[in-house]
Amino acid sequence: MPRAEITENTGLNKSTVLSLVDELAHHGLVTEQQGASNGNRGRPSPVVAPNPHRVVAIATEISVAHARIATVGLGGRVFESVEADVHPAIDGPEATTRALGEASISLLAKGAAVVGAGTAIHGLVTIDGQLVDCPNMGWSSLELASYGQAVLPRELPLLFGNDADLGALAEHRRGIGRNVDAPDLLYLSAEIGIGGGLIRGGERESGRHGHATEVGHLVVNPAGTACACGSRGCLETEVGALALLRKARRTSSNRRGVEGVLEDAQFGHKQARAAVADAAGWLGFGIGNIVNILDPGLVVCGGFLAGIHQLAADEIEYAARAVIVAGNRRPLHIVPAVLGGDAALVGAAELVFDHVLSDPAALVPVPSSRVPA
Amino acid sequence: MPRAEITENTGLNKSTVLSLVDELAHHGLVTEQQGASNGNRGRPSPVVAPNPHRVVAIATEISVAHARIATVGLGGRVFESVEADVHPAIDGPEATTRALGEASISLLAKGAAVVGAGTAIHGLVTIDGQLVDCPNMGWSSLELASYGQAVLPRELPLLFGNDADLGALAEHRRGIGRNVDAPDLLYLSAEIGIGGGLIRGGERESGRHGHATEVGHLVVNPAGTACACGSRGCLETEVGALALLRKARRTSSNRRGVEGVLEDAQFGHKQARAAVADAAGWLGFGIGNIVNILDPGLVVCGGFLAGIHQLAADEIEYAARAVIVAGNRRPLHIVPAVLGGDAALVGAAELVFDHVLSDPAALVPVPSSRVPA
Repeated sequence: MPRAEITENTGLNKSTVLSLVDELAHHGLVTEQQGASNGNRGRPSPVVAPNPHRVVAIATEISVAHARIATVGLGGRVFESVEADVHPAIDGPEATTRALGEASISLLAKGAAVVGAGTAIHGLVTIDGQLVDCPNMGWSSLELASYGQAVLPRELPLLFGNDADLGALAEHRRGIGRNVDAPDLLYLSAEIGIGGGLIRGGERESGRHGHATEVGHLVVNPAGTACACGSRGCLETEVGALALLRKARRTSSNRRGVEGVLEDAQFGHKQARAAVADAAGWLGFGIGNIVNILDPGLVVCGGFLAGIHQLAADEIEYAARAVIVAGNRRPLHIVPAVLGGDAALVGAAELVFDHVLSDPAALVPVPSSRVPA
Repeated sequence: MPRAEITENTGLNKSTVLSLVDELAHHGLVTEQQGASNGNRGRPSPVVAPNPHRVVAIATEISVAHARIATVGLGGRVFESVEADVHPAIDGPEATTRALGEASISLLAKGAAVVGAGTAIHGLVTIDGQLVDCPNMGWSSLELASYGQAVLPRELPLLFGNDADLGALAEHRRGIGRNVDAPDLLYLSAEIGIGGGLIRGGERESGRHGHATEVGHLVVNPAGTACACGSRGCLETEVGALALLRKARRTSSNRRGVEGVLEDAQFGHKQARAAVADAAGWLGFGIGNIVNILDPGLVVCGGFLAGIHQLAADEIEYAARAVIVAGNRRPLHIVPAVLGGDAALVGAAELVFDHVLSDPAALVPVPSSRVPA
């Protein structure tokens, strides 16, 4: 943003903005570049931009069947990400931590300064890493921070969040919400399970205990199949990866399998199309019920739900409107996500950047040669 | 609150607080009374209290089968309420307005100064009275403000809200939340239909378009009976007044009928007990699903749901925990409301007081002898 615009937006005077920007630049958080001329107003105001190379977060994503670690620069750019050689649900938290540590070695020997580590996990977790529950992974009641502390330098802040909550944050700031006025956004994530995250008035809204928008466990079909959460007929059991594979009569349970179903549906394969249409109907029904409760401005379909949306947007909307009170007379915006598989990682990095930007002067970056410790 | 405490809480200096309180007292919004001595600290600080007799709101509640109008003093005290001789769903908006106007005559000839009119209605409505939909009443797309303007002095602000949203506000400020730290509260209302309202961080949270927490239309039983909203098996069709009467094999459809079922259940009548237990199970199931989405700190059962809670708290909690993710390991507080039938009226008055308190100096009270105009 041009420095002149910062002055205008903040209402601060020119010299104050100049000295604040200088301070941020001194800490390496921003750079000033020459602005583009706007034709007739003389010398352009310098553009203040985040400095992604100086300020890097380690972002980790732990899902049911895979774990990734990445470096993300201030501003949300994913520099590099490495898949860890582990299946978290099968191998458990210790092996997952070890595998992530190993994966990080190739990642971190690149000379950037790391300011913190953010972790997105597919479960109920507090910001400081108290893991309450991950029904799909069989993990519960863990102190995740202690795992992180074992492999990372002590001075690095470790922050945690639910993968869908962080996906919502990422789509809001760096994805679909970046250039539109969408301060109220519901993000639906989908890997193996289905999750949700809500942005309300521009901020993450995760409920009294941090466990809101567990939309995957909204019961949509009380007569449906048993869910890992202990309940029955959850949105996840009708729309999740396993449901889609089951409906399409596939045996594979990995992400490739879901992508295969979506590709086949796109090319007109009958069973795959029927599976997608069925999932789209349940998805719309679920979205309708959730809209009755949350009334978000925008519903963003993330993970493979973006693919379902691409193939069956009308079915989703039709099913949703049928459930929403006065559904035919109300605005309803259901759109696909744009960050794809990186949403949770980008959101995990945002946690770190929020922490750093709340007190930039306290920043103690760790050279990446010391990460892991 | 003692003036000394206001000084402490606001962090303003003593003389500033003194002059602000003087200004509020000058406008008649507060009074200063001698404080009680606390034993050993010398002269007690004067207690600043709202002045309910000077500042009165007209509060109106429009439900499916009844309409009421009341005077409510600043601080939430209902002075008087009168039932209008009308059945809104059958008689329509014009007859309802006329009947409320007639009912108000006996109410308003009492010498108080009226600062505004707040209306709680059982439907989707904006703060300025754009009624989007009332499925249970068959009202939709109305400009409610124009009805109010026809019978009230022009200078009175007219404000509108959903009855359950306003019930939530009332329970938060003047009811169950008054003396406890419950900044996140879900209120469930029940007259004929079921509604919901959410307080988040101490504020009403009603979604992007004001239509959030339409919890009565959460589909809990997709194979269930048709609902007035156009959907099927809504929480309302399983737990609402008509459902309870149907389950208890009663023919009456008025509120007396529901109270009769609750009384009979309390005295051990078998069919009534079974009806209450069944409704409690669906209520808990619905609450569980809503908790998965909203994660409120407190769930408040209002209207006749307070009676169901009194008789079957365990059934409600058991059914809710079965659906909530990690439900057996998470805090869950489901409690009965305390304001009873006055919640929506008190909330409607709070709308008016919020408006007045946002700019007390602009206050133009109307002598009640001029209301209706």
